[in-house]
Amino acid sequence: MNEPTARRRDVTVADVAREAKVAKATAARSLGGYGAVSDDVRQRVQAAAEALGYHANGLARSMNTGRSNTIGVIVGDIENPYFGLAMRGITDTAKAAGYDVILANTGEQLDAEIDAARVFVEKRVDGFIVAPASFTLTDHLSDIMHSGRPLVLLDRHVANLDDVDVIEVDNEKVAHAAAQHLIDRGHERIAFITTLELGSNPYQAGDELGVSSVSARVNGILAAMNTAGVDNSERYLRFGANSGSGVKGVTRELMQLEEPPTAIIASDSLIAMGVLGELRELGLTVPDDVSFIMFDDFEWATLISPALTVIAQPVYEVGVAAATRLIARIEGRVTGEPIQVFPAALVHRKSVAPPRVVGRDDA
Amino acid sequence: MNEPTARRRDVTVADVAREAKVAKATAARSLGGYGAVSDDVRQRVQAAAEALGYHANGLARSMNTGRSNTIGVIVGDIENPYFGLAMRGITDTAKAAGYDVILANTGEQLDAEIDAARVFVEKRVDGFIVAPASFTLTDHLSDIMHSGRPLVLLDRHVANLDDVDVIEVDNEKVAHAAAQHLIDRGHERIAFITTLELGSNPYQAGDELGVSSVSARVNGILAAMNTAGVDNSERYLRFGANSGSGVKGVTRELMQLEEPPTAIIASDSLIAMGVLGELRELGLTVPDDVSFIMFDDFEWATLISPALTVIAQPVYEVGVAAATRLIARIEGRVTGEPIQVFPAALVHRKSVAPPRVVGRDDA
Repeated sequence: MNEPTARRRDVTVADVAREAKVAKATAARSLGGYGAVSDDVRQRVQAAAEALGYHANGLARSMNTGRSNTIGVIVGDIENPYFGLAMRGITDTAKAAGYDVILANTGEQLDAEIDAARVFVEKRVDGFIVAPASFTLTDHLSDIMHSGRPLVLLDRHVANLDDVDVIEVDNEKVAHAAAQHLIDRGHERIAFITTLELGSNPYQAGDELGVSSVSARVNGILAAMNTAGVDNSERYLRFGANSGSGVKGVTRELMQLEEPPTAIIASDSLIAMGVLGELRELGLTVPDDVSFIMFDDFEWATLISPALTVIAQPVYEVGVAAATRLIARIEGRVTGEPIQVFPAALVHRKSVAPPRVVGRDDA
Repeated sequence: MNEPTARRRDVTVADVAREAKVAKATAARSLGGYGAVSDDVRQRVQAAAEALGYHANGLARSMNTGRSNTIGVIVGDIENPYFGLAMRGITDTAKAAGYDVILANTGEQLDAEIDAARVFVEKRVDGFIVAPASFTLTDHLSDIMHSGRPLVLLDRHVANLDDVDVIEVDNEKVAHAAAQHLIDRGHERIAFITTLELGSNPYQAGDELGVSSVSARVNGILAAMNTAGVDNSERYLRFGANSGSGVKGVTRELMQLEEPPTAIIASDSLIAMGVLGELRELGLTVPDDVSFIMFDDFEWATLISPALTVIAQPVYEVGVAAATRLIARIEGRVTGEPIQVFPAALVHRKSVAPPRVVGRDDA
């Protein structure tokens, strides 16, 4: 029964002892699996515990064993299929090693991440996997490390945590390759759309952004454009696309410029859906009116017409590597470098073509 | 530093007391916010706690207040965007009410659900939101309720829990409407594909399946077909589409039958992607060769050609309602019925047309 007025009262060791007609210390020894207890007593205590629905006090148990066999994972946005797939890699690995996984979602908000870290410390997780919301504000992550709980950063590194484990993707290299591919087809006006919020200042080339994976993408795109001699290469960068008029509003604003971009790179698959939806609203066709590349590869990208050229990240493998590394840390058997960088691949399909208005001699 | 050999040792109240040069009981009163403590002492204790990185012992605190302000959510598959969106409804609501949310993913495995429930009880969550993996095997859910922790079932009801709160969608009604729409356009050979595993026996009409929302869909589809006088209406039902050859294999098997279905209903958006990908592999076109309807509505469904006719569930609202109900239970201020059923809508787009081979006189 789920009585609204029911006052929760957890069954205690004292309750079990009373039911089993043994001393409390005896019941505690039996339930905790330590000290000498006769088989008869153990059976009576076990039966009483089951009858009363006694649940081991997780904290007390973890203070005895030093472990709760639980991993805490903190991600930015579980609606982003990237994190859903990474979570499967984490949970598959954790389960095989005998660990439970509990997850918190921050909506990419630093205060929510700090709060989740506190909750997980209170819940006595054995270790953390975190996709940090901020590149620089990491005191709470430092606290985790100082408490002796292993920490592995997922998808993003941070500025000031020495020797922290990081599992990430080489975003700069693959972003450079994507931009170079567009440049090779004749594009100079290349937009990049991310939901990452910029601080109070406008973006200046070389600025370190709040999320390292996004910084790397911007750096890779701009490097390719600068090498190709494109002026004012950052003018089509768009940040904070979830706020204000949203991804659709940003897309509209870009495409209604006097000189609109001839190619768009979307920083994840959710952004991509918004961009493509708005392009259709505007009556624009990919790739005839604008070329398009998206980070991440999910099956719908091959179902739409034209099939999308994408940047395929090894997302599941990143999750597996993060959990493997964390569990090795927890169990004190770590080898290898703290930072593992996975390659990503530019997958060519049908959403890139030369721009209508060719702006370069070599196109 | 993330030293592999570091032995975790949590900072205790005794450490804080020593650092602040006060008695342990005084430090405990000050940290716990109860009893009389001078401002000077409170400031010294606070400073010591911050210097040492003291984290409140969550369990001890919850034994004082009776609450941990944490909700435990257990879902079947966080890769399914349905659960991602429901989670946003839950976390938005919980955050506004001052609760943290921790999540566990079961992969629709009962043993993983039982394990997650145990972990969350040990972690002393205040209440549970669960999308149960089994309609009948619910002892662990009964245990949760008996422990006095409120429980709200999400998306699915179960057989034997009296008075449990349930937030679900009227799947039978909307599935009936979807099948009726297909029948009205002339279809008799209607397939339904779900990843839900059947038990050891073949499906018999009227069988209660392991997940109530899927049972309701099957019942709605078969009821519409039976009313329309379609014989052998269950012959195109396919269960367990994630095992064996997967969704693609099931789709291929169906379409290579001597009498293949003329319409397919996919039970979620992940299944839909697999079906559509395989239809394309087979060189079949929607809706010319086969009509198609999918449960759930995400933006890619409008980006593909043809845009998909879908069953739009109020997923975010279901999450909000589940969290609202649970928090009301936790705080002892519940009103209204325990079961809330939300309507879903059949959204007509372009993926349904009359079958090529018309099988009915009235088509």
